[in-house]
Amino acid sequence: MRLVRYDSGQGPRTGRVETGGDGDVVRELGPSGPGAVAGRLAEVVLLAPCDPRTIVCVGSNYPCQLAEKGRPRPERPALFLKAPNAVVGPGEPVLRPAGVERLEYEGELAVVIGRRARDLDERTAWSHVLGLTCANDVTAHDYRADGQWARAKSADTFCPLGPWIETEPGAGPWGLRTTLNGRTVQESDTGAMIFDVARILAHVTRWITLQPGDVVLTGSPGGVGPMTAGDRVTVEIDGVGTLENPVAERPAPVVH
Amino acid sequence: MRLVRYDSGQGPRTGRVETGGDGDVVRELGPSGPGAVAGRLAEVVLLAPCDPRTIVCVGSNYPCQLAEKGRPRPERPALFLKAPNAVVGPGEPVLRPAGVERLEYEGELAVVIGRRARDLDERTAWSHVLGLTCANDVTAHDYRADGQWARAKSADTFCPLGPWIETEPGAGPWGLRTTLNGRTVQESDTGAMIFDVARILAHVTRWITLQPGDVVLTGSPGGVGPMTAGDRVTVEIDGVGTLENPVAERPAPVVH
Repeated sequence: MRLVRYDSGQGPRTGRVETGGDGDVVRELGPSGPGAVAGRLAEVVLLAPCDPRTIVCVGSNYPCQLAEKGRPRPERPALFLKAPNAVVGPGEPVLRPAGVERLEYEGELAVVIGRRARDLDERTAWSHVLGLTCANDVTAHDYRADGQWARAKSADTFCPLGPWIETEPGAGPWGLRTTLNGRTVQESDTGAMIFDVARILAHVTRWITLQPGDVVLTGSPGGVGPMTAGDRVTVEIDGVGTLENPVAERPAPVVH
Repeated sequence: MRLVRYDSGQGPRTGRVETGGDGDVVRELGPSGPGAVAGRLAEVVLLAPCDPRTIVCVGSNYPCQLAEKGRPRPERPALFLKAPNAVVGPGEPVLRPAGVERLEYEGELAVVIGRRARDLDERTAWSHVLGLTCANDVTAHDYRADGQWARAKSADTFCPLGPWIETEPGAGPWGLRTTLNGRTVQESDTGAMIFDVARILAHVTRWITLQPGDVVLTGSPGGVGPMTAGDRVTVEIDGVGTLENPVAERPAPVVH
């Protein structure tokens, strides 16, 4: 099932994508089951498919990316956080803060938690997963020099998620591609990850209890590069979906 | 006003502390105004006074702490994040994860946001603040070596907040004291901060939009040190309140 959140005109709603005779539609899901059709998929305004409070990310998880950066292979998943203010949905612009010279895309597989997850065992970790979605771990490269990556990784709009949560993605591994203005700039598959999803979840939840709707980003393969206002970036994961976002300038502050 | 969240037995409720003839009580607050008295303050189970999604922290913000650590004076507020899974309320135990050799207290003034805050101007930043509370920026020193501080700063229970939000704390600066088992281990006042609250808020909100209930931790003075299971830690801020938490071991994982 492909679970979406969408703008109903009266706040966010949850729905699922259904394939009909004349194209995909979004049907509302409520506590009492499927409801009315909200509209054609192409016409419904999709939001980020979940509303995470905690977003844990793994760095240095693809050998090809380590080779490019000259980093050593980590002994355990290297964790950092993104803050929820960073989340945007499909189609929403990624905003470059004034003064940032190098804004980077990082296409990643994102895992959405379905059940409270603490001290997970690798063998059963997947049973706590609701499904998979695509993420762009947007990074202001300039601010990596801060040491801690709060500005580099968690500025507003730095965590596009979507377009939906695929709850039946198959067994994997999943091919992953990032495109910049239609040109493929990252291409790998999740089988190349140093730490797989189950290992990551077991590691994270030894310290951080995850709740339904929380998200774990699993790292980006090689090919990370810059993007500028006017660009369009897609993150495409086989069996999951394609997340597309434009890039724009963050509007100048309004003086209060 | 002292705003609290408390466990009503039927979920979290919001209330305020009132000083009565025979001691402080908690009165429920609802959308239609003050409600019934929930109980004596000493008997009501207080929760963390807010439920932040985004928690931004400032490091290296007291000269005395920089001197101890031999760190240079930062040019701008040094930001890092804590994740919301870390939040606990007054009296809730801080849990030492298995294997952590050095768990540290860091008493801090915490600012609770009242209005959506983006691109704030230093002169008007305070108008976006709901009030102040006490925080303990608990740190697993062992994990600082990770580079990024996700495990070091955001393990479960690593962000005690409370006991309430003081909405009328006066003009400051506010004296700040941390005690360990009754012995004062940190003592300073917020006038010593390198970057004051308004400057911090202006800086943070250039990148990170804060929402009502979000929290900004303003840094810890010198005297940071270890704590172990069985200890009791208080963070006391003049004109705000006293936050007390015991320290315990994180229970061993249940095998699923």
